[in-house]
Amino acid sequence: MTDDSQAPVEHRRLIIAGTGISGLSAAIYAARSNNDPLVFEGDEPGGQLTLTTDVENYPGFPDGISGPELINNMKQQAKKFGAETKNGIIESVTVSGDGADRTFHVELKNGDVYTADAFITASGASARTLDIPGQEEMMGYGLSTCATCDGAFFRDEKIMVIGGGDAAMEEANFLTKFASTVYLVHRREEFRAEDVWIDRTMEKVAAGEIELLLNTEATALHGSREDGMKSVTLVRHPDGHPTAKIDDPETEEFEFDVGAVFYAIGHTPNTDYLSDLPVETDEDGYLITEGGRGAGQTKTGVPGLFGAGDVVDFYYQQAVTAAGMGSEAAIDADEYLEALERERAKAEAGETAVAQSDD
Amino acid sequence: MTDDSQAPVEHRRLIIAGTGISGLSAAIYAARSNNDPLVFEGDEPGGQLTLTTDVENYPGFPDGISGPELINNMKQQAKKFGAETKNGIIESVTVSGDGADRTFHVELKNGDVYTADAFITASGASARTLDIPGQEEMMGYGLSTCATCDGAFFRDEKIMVIGGGDAAMEEANFLTKFASTVYLVHRREEFRAEDVWIDRTMEKVAAGEIELLLNTEATALHGSREDGMKSVTLVRHPDGHPTAKIDDPETEEFEFDVGAVFYAIGHTPNTDYLSDLPVETDEDGYLITEGGRGAGQTKTGVPGLFGAGDVVDFYYQQAVTAAGMGSEAAIDADEYLEALERERAKAEAGETAVAQSDD
Repeated sequence: MTDDSQAPVEHRRLIIAGTGISGLSAAIYAARSNNDPLVFEGDEPGGQLTLTTDVENYPGFPDGISGPELINNMKQQAKKFGAETKNGIIESVTVSGDGADRTFHVELKNGDVYTADAFITASGASARTLDIPGQEEMMGYGLSTCATCDGAFFRDEKIMVIGGGDAAMEEANFLTKFASTVYLVHRREEFRAEDVWIDRTMEKVAAGEIELLLNTEATALHGSREDGMKSVTLVRHPDGHPTAKIDDPETEEFEFDVGAVFYAIGHTPNTDYLSDLPVETDEDGYLITEGGRGAGQTKTGVPGLFGAGDVVDFYYQQAVTAAGMGSEAAIDADEYLEALERERAKAEAGETAVAQSDD
Repeated sequence: MTDDSQAPVEHRRLIIAGTGISGLSAAIYAARSNNDPLVFEGDEPGGQLTLTTDVENYPGFPDGISGPELINNMKQQAKKFGAETKNGIIESVTVSGDGADRTFHVELKNGDVYTADAFITASGASARTLDIPGQEEMMGYGLSTCATCDGAFFRDEKIMVIGGGDAAMEEANFLTKFASTVYLVHRREEFRAEDVWIDRTMEKVAAGEIELLLNTEATALHGSREDGMKSVTLVRHPDGHPTAKIDDPETEEFEFDVGAVFYAIGHTPNTDYLSDLPVETDEDGYLITEGGRGAGQTKTGVPGLFGAGDVVDFYYQQAVTAAGMGSEAAIDADEYLEALERERAKAEAGETAVAQSDD
């Protein structure tokens, strides 16, 4: 909880958590609506898109654009209209007061407190890991969640990619630049990825650059920080999902030598810092917003708190869908802030200011 | 209804209605998913964004981009991945068969029929008009719904803009380039527009370039096709919405001389061609889609028919929200098409193919 004795560093009309696509899109719109947004850049500045070398499907760039360049463009655009970005990891968000006095308290890990009239959660999602033996020791020493960041360290090595979606395909294809062979490990037989990615992968399979290990899962990583990744223990079952059938006589276990392992098995939404608020999340931690038709689709159960991007969207997860939601959140926040302003004007005019019951 | 005796020109996996932002975004995604989309370009190619000179809030372009250029970029991008665009006004869409045989029949105004496995409605919305005396005669002769198209015809004239939202502000600001004075007629006292537009407008008001006529509505247009617009009959009431209070003693009527009138009073969704289908629309004609969380947000009540962009969205109506929905519709259509393919494979394999009851 926020320490009430601590004086806030600053009060803002609107604070936005996250400088990924959705946070920056919200910032562009919020700045244009004169809501003077302060955008906190957490420990993954620019969000997941910065890990993408070539964004081909963001509408408007026929020749593609690199993830970092697209993020940088949006940051410039937000700043141009008056948005401010600041480094800061948010520890918790709480709310005090009601009606015209309703205020968000945003406490950073360094102890600084900022207050705001409204808050947009655009803190995205972070790469998921498997939680298998060897993982903690090897992370950053032959185990990675980001091919574009770390791929070039493993030239002419055997590289394993674990996963079956778009991200796994993209990582596997990208890593063929460096690897002697890329081994794509997927727990089922079928891939849940865009056809364009499956086609490209199959071309590389035909060319011998990618090898598929289907119906297979990793159960342990072997190696050391000094010498890097040595091998992975794999299990396979002809019907898939082998770790769920570990005692089945058809499940076989084997060692597989590789020089690096990349996880591409999805993401977990970053909502921990909201745990002091009565916001609703689903079983995977994704923030539940109002949805529906017309105004207020990005509203959460906490008035003045809005959600956008991968912290909400567990399905489409595209750059352009995140951008769309970010702009919606800023529009919804603007409506809330204008209502708050009217409330305050009334309160100052000496009228009885009872927020929720007054409409 | 479709004439069954007419042989279709062509069968496609996916037909998309509309080459605006949402249709082209859907086309980019659908082409990348190997769904070989055919995109019909109706009588407003590129949609409403082509009427915008400078798009400042589409995330990714810090210096702004012109509407036609953004549309052209997206069209190139869609074609690059294999989408095909074709001129054609759709007269009606019907559906035949069920399960593996389910087929959309798309009939054009010229009589040509195309069939498809799935259909995305991204046909947008068209400018609304007032339906007042003089309108029919003057449309295109001093009356317009598009400042960027027709503004330059009225240099040094008094120009009237009717409306109070973003579009009205944008048109009014743009028209100051040409007009001796722009008169902004709005039926209420307050504007429902982005603050950035209100601020810019107020600057022009201060500079004497725009004059506000608030709580005012137009009731008749006077002029001729030969000599152009001469004057407008206006009514004003101190509490706004004067035409609803026409007999109120406080309502005053007066003539106002202008050389041109631009309507900027919103849009009507283009859904007429869907009237043979059991799709649900709201009272204003906007297509109702599933919304909610996760997969299938762009589904309509007709399996295989999806909706995106301004034909659905009556509230946010931004280029980037339309782009986001377009990509969602393509992702949803892809899921439908993959299920249909499995259904057909089963039917061909001689199994009993009963679509809806089989899961």
